[in-house]
Amino acid sequence: MKLTILGCHSATPSINANPTAQVLEIKNNMFLIDCGEGTQVELRRNKIKFSRIKHIFISHLHGDHYFGLVGLVNTFSLLTRETELHIYAPKGLKEVILLQMKLSASWTQYPLIFHELSSDASELIYEDDKVEVYTIPLKHRVYTNGFLFKEKENERKIDINLVTEANIDKAYFRKLKQGFDVENEDGVLINNKKVTKDPKPAKSYAYCSDTIYNEDIIPIIKDSTVLYHESTFLDKNEALCIPTKHSTAKQAATIAKKANVETLILGHYSTRYNGYNDFKTEAKTVFNNVLLSKDGKTFNFD
Amino acid sequence: MKLTILGCHSATPSINANPTAQVLEIKNNMFLIDCGEGTQVELRRNKIKFSRIKHIFISHLHGDHYFGLVGLVNTFSLLTRETELHIYAPKGLKEVILLQMKLSASWTQYPLIFHELSSDASELIYEDDKVEVYTIPLKHRVYTNGFLFKEKENERKIDINLVTEANIDKAYFRKLKQGFDVENEDGVLINNKKVTKDPKPAKSYAYCSDTIYNEDIIPIIKDSTVLYHESTFLDKNEALCIPTKHSTAKQAATIAKKANVETLILGHYSTRYNGYNDFKTEAKTVFNNVLLSKDGKTFNFD
Repeated sequence: MKLTILGCHSATPSINANPTAQVLEIKNNMFLIDCGEGTQVELRRNKIKFSRIKHIFISHLHGDHYFGLVGLVNTFSLLTRETELHIYAPKGLKEVILLQMKLSASWTQYPLIFHELSSDASELIYEDDKVEVYTIPLKHRVYTNGFLFKEKENERKIDINLVTEANIDKAYFRKLKQGFDVENEDGVLINNKKVTKDPKPAKSYAYCSDTIYNEDIIPIIKDSTVLYHESTFLDKNEALCIPTKHSTAKQAATIAKKANVETLILGHYSTRYNGYNDFKTEAKTVFNNVLLSKDGKTFNFD
Repeated sequence: MKLTILGCHSATPSINANPTAQVLEIKNNMFLIDCGEGTQVELRRNKIKFSRIKHIFISHLHGDHYFGLVGLVNTFSLLTRETELHIYAPKGLKEVILLQMKLSASWTQYPLIFHELSSDASELIYEDDKVEVYTIPLKHRVYTNGFLFKEKENERKIDINLVTEANIDKAYFRKLKQGFDVENEDGVLINNKKVTKDPKPAKSYAYCSDTIYNEDIIPIIKDSTVLYHESTFLDKNEALCIPTKHSTAKQAATIAKKANVETLILGHYSTRYNGYNDFKTEAKTVFNNVLLSKDGKTFNFD
């Protein structure tokens, strides 16, 4: 599992501060999460192949999270993409994109499929053999979802020497990988754990931006490997969180602790601050394993 | 008159190639012309004060000419702008912007005034004491206008020694500046040219992008000081101009010659070419005074 931060700043793009966008590589998927203005250039800068992006998740319809999407959709067309593109976003975005296509008299020649979100409860919105994606309902000034990306449980690993010794036929290997006990050639029931090893634990990534401090999300993100939680402000500016519906670094860390995640990544910094070390210092008073996002930074969780 | 090129490339933005946007400084106005994705960052990079931009002219609704507008409008709000902003653009853009504002539940607190264009004839769309702006109907795949920015004729310059010598009362200075002959204190009619000097000639800037080769624009742009004419392709790719409705460098130069402009600036280069000197070489076979636009370049015409 690998996460590349294309942009981690709030509000407006500037020369050295990109608005929100990130790419999560998980089990051969390349998921684009949010798409602020300039994202297509940041994808190029980070050498991420456009053709590998097949699913885009948009948290909410504030510009710093989606103004780069129409340009990316358009560029895919100009590059004669043929692969399907799925967009998971709040209801309304489809209308925005289609209106602009209509006005430019140019439609994508590749299938563009919108999955419009409007539920206030967490729901499964994507699933393949190895990954599931759920929404995380957040509380912000407009309808907003975070996203939980979960690897499915990996299969148990067969120890080839032990299964041969135990005289188990190949036809049962599938069952063994799934954790079942099986009979051997002599009709003896073999305990699964005697011939298989525990799989690598399944990883998960919870993306929560933008949101006010909200403990309702804890059951959904519980025990995640990595939590990205917005920290727009420092504790000294906590009062700003109420009208803007954002969080402080300390609040992000509190959620991380209560949800028992392994690692917390902070981001969506307000551009009012010079440097972001104070965010880390503040969060670490509550939760130990804190990382700072930075435009162009890649985190590897393998 | 000063022109800053923020972007001069066609189609999609990339690391070193910005889509179309430029700023024309003319008689104290700061006009933004087109606004591709990333324009707000380029404005910052070129140290152009956001508050000085009061009028934005959008040629047509292809993304590489306007995808940066909604972000700029939004940023002006976040910066608590109060000054009016006027947008001159094809019908449809207002709907695009307002829809996105509605979805983000955030309206500008400054007056945002749309001037929707739909006429196929050249029309006066802006006028103040010193400048006029006309549309230049272009032929492209969608409804498109170029823009002609014209300084009004400057006033004649009074030679203070000569008017004193000629015994002309101050009350007549206004008339003298306007070019009239006036009576002096002794009742003698004084020939204007004897006591005033010719003003600096009025300048004009014709912006023509995107368009197929079209001689219909010649009467409108005739004798302009500067013509920016798109040159998406080189002559060797002229065949591409028909389906895409673009021009070659040679065609741009032919328009410049026939319209008797002083200077031609080329731009809107297709990103298929490496380097742009061939554009200049090609145009110079037809018209002598050719400049190449480049992202971040400023041309001074004073």
